[in-house]
Amino acid sequence: MAKNAIVGQSGGPTSVINASLAGVFQACERRGAGRVYGMAHGVQGLLEEKIVDLSATLTSQLDIELLKRTPSSYLGSCRYKLPDPAEDTAVYERLFAILKKLDIGYFFYIGGNDSMDTICKLSDYAKTVGSDIRFMGVPKTIDNDLMVTDHTPGYGSAAKYIGVVMKELIRDATVYGTKYVTIVEIMGRNAGWLTAAAALARGEDSEGVDMICLPEVPFNVDNFIAKVERMQKERASIVIAVSEGVKLHDGRYVCELADDARFVDAFGHKSLTGTARYLANQVAAHLDTKTRSIELSTLQRCAAHMTSRTDITEAFQVGGAAAKAAFEGHTGEMIALKRLSNDPYQCTTEPHDIHEVANFEKKVPLEWVNADHTDMLPAFINYASPLIQAELTPVFINGLPRHIYIP
Amino acid sequence: MAKNAIVGQSGGPTSVINASLAGVFQACERRGAGRVYGMAHGVQGLLEEKIVDLSATLTSQLDIELLKRTPSSYLGSCRYKLPDPAEDTAVYERLFAILKKLDIGYFFYIGGNDSMDTICKLSDYAKTVGSDIRFMGVPKTIDNDLMVTDHTPGYGSAAKYIGVVMKELIRDATVYGTKYVTIVEIMGRNAGWLTAAAALARGEDSEGVDMICLPEVPFNVDNFIAKVERMQKERASIVIAVSEGVKLHDGRYVCELADDARFVDAFGHKSLTGTARYLANQVAAHLDTKTRSIELSTLQRCAAHMTSRTDITEAFQVGGAAAKAAFEGHTGEMIALKRLSNDPYQCTTEPHDIHEVANFEKKVPLEWVNADHTDMLPAFINYASPLIQAELTPVFINGLPRHIYIP
Repeated sequence: MAKNAIVGQSGGPTSVINASLAGVFQACERRGAGRVYGMAHGVQGLLEEKIVDLSATLTSQLDIELLKRTPSSYLGSCRYKLPDPAEDTAVYERLFAILKKLDIGYFFYIGGNDSMDTICKLSDYAKTVGSDIRFMGVPKTIDNDLMVTDHTPGYGSAAKYIGVVMKELIRDATVYGTKYVTIVEIMGRNAGWLTAAAALARGEDSEGVDMICLPEVPFNVDNFIAKVERMQKERASIVIAVSEGVKLHDGRYVCELADDARFVDAFGHKSLTGTARYLANQVAAHLDTKTRSIELSTLQRCAAHMTSRTDITEAFQVGGAAAKAAFEGHTGEMIALKRLSNDPYQCTTEPHDIHEVANFEKKVPLEWVNADHTDMLPAFINYASPLIQAELTPVFINGLPRHIYIP
Repeated sequence: MAKNAIVGQSGGPTSVINASLAGVFQACERRGAGRVYGMAHGVQGLLEEKIVDLSATLTSQLDIELLKRTPSSYLGSCRYKLPDPAEDTAVYERLFAILKKLDIGYFFYIGGNDSMDTICKLSDYAKTVGSDIRFMGVPKTIDNDLMVTDHTPGYGSAAKYIGVVMKELIRDATVYGTKYVTIVEIMGRNAGWLTAAAALARGEDSEGVDMICLPEVPFNVDNFIAKVERMQKERASIVIAVSEGVKLHDGRYVCELADDARFVDAFGHKSLTGTARYLANQVAAHLDTKTRSIELSTLQRCAAHMTSRTDITEAFQVGGAAAKAAFEGHTGEMIALKRLSNDPYQCTTEPHDIHEVANFEKKVPLEWVNADHTDMLPAFINYASPLIQAELTPVFINGLPRHIYIP
């Protein structure tokens, strides 16, 4: 009797995380899994035995196509950190008992750094208790900060969205021909991959953004204002992309200079917001210019109406590759994307030991940033441009993109 | 010798204002205008004789197609209020001298309320001085608050954008299954047409937004919090669309309760921002829930990557109809859209006396709002749904939509 498979989604949403779910689901079905279950809200839901029978909810090829076009996590997500198994085994015993009851042979977790930590702990624990369940990580994060993989599914679509809206915001900001500083806040706590994507806006039909501020580069508010003043002598409208995670030399986040509330989540992450607003207020206070701050907010991670087809295809592929690897006996690994060539762009998948991935963060290489720390160099454009190519048209019903969801 | 035409764009940008420019330009060329000039930055630029020769910059059908897909005002815009001609005729003498020098016979102004005020004053002044220049207004505003016209070009695309992103934000906000209140701030100072468009998100594939707060309905912060608390007993994730212009019973804007700076423009408009942030902070202070505030900001008026084809087509048509009317002898009028039927949707254009339009504001009828003031009734959906139908695909080059601009 064939074993069953179970798949969960964890961490922040992306526009294409459901394409990975579709890839896992379809490959497991085709490889002969008994049933394919979903964890509702990840491992946290699994602990409460909140299970979805995907074989029953995804019943047609149309469902699969809609799933690829539906943003956020179809199964729901969680931010749940497993305890250190050396200190607390109760949760693990509970989880493995549930998996046994469900007759699970294959366990897939789609997510970022924290989710790979979960796969790492579960596969390590499985070894210590002699379980033969295979645990595979499927990479997903708009942040593009996972080790080993050339890039992460989710990044290409978010980068494309940022390129598109920066071009539009630049057109909008030049409209009055008056002095105007627009500061756009982009996600990315410690890694500036998304903010860097603002550089994609420049081209023969766009001036591009005037400054890019990455969290990898220590930030100085006075220098920032001085640069804006200098730039505005050349051009009335200045558009700046700034990471929510820019930090001062002493390590404090710039947004901490403002007096907004913030909170710390289960992984110790500070909630960052208000960086652009703070900087826009500072510019307005020191320079004779109108300012506007814009937070791209959650739209950059859920704008399924503007995705990269390259990204969606790869998101689907890593899901399928994870299923293939698990059925072939792999466990304790994450599927990485490996770029074979850039021109033409070619990319394949390969499994990597999860210990190489979990709890590390990949930053933007500083050699891809110009000397003035205001712009990305061509090496970055060459890296990112292939990831935003081509589109996947939404299925429009009555003027709006069609989604699929579990009510 | 044929007279020349001149066209300007004024007020806030939209995604489709350039489609109206394309309509005016093409119709003027076809009807035999000598040259078609553009005012750089509207009447303000005209006063400084900043003129663009459109016959020289738009040279191909591809340029016209790209113009239709380029957001914001190709010619640049202004927020310039002409003085009362009874008090100050110097500006008018100056303007008419420039128009005479350019040998202008046809004058088109694409814009909203304030721009129609400009057409009104100029055509009135022309009569008093016996000028035979024909002045025509071309409606444009995402706010949909112009009188006489069934709706305004620009509204359909902004409404579609809002419907699309609200669907996506709803999916994003439900992902953790935890208590979460998302408050989305939408443009619309006194008229709630755009905020009402959030109602379009609801359908068989979306729960829709949970509350809609229009500026037409006096706002009470305590009642708002009480409603949120009541709703959250039924559902963990609550998504609310709130107009930037919601006001208390005493007439103060809700955002004035926060302590953010604000300014007043040449038309006496207060700059409104921070409404959602203020309300999210209030909810967080009073209820046991996570909150997030999102401002759609200028994206809702410049997201040319997600437009309504119905809207773009109508924007082009009102431009062409204005040129036709002017060449047939009309002056001092605005082209209105007249809905002939809803099922099937049919719409035509007709000129209206500019005095019926200038300086009035059309509000959302309160009979289209439910008794609880939290949702739109089917009459609104029937009104708005035809306006968001169909799409105009961007011309994607290298993964990004192509624009056209004057460097």
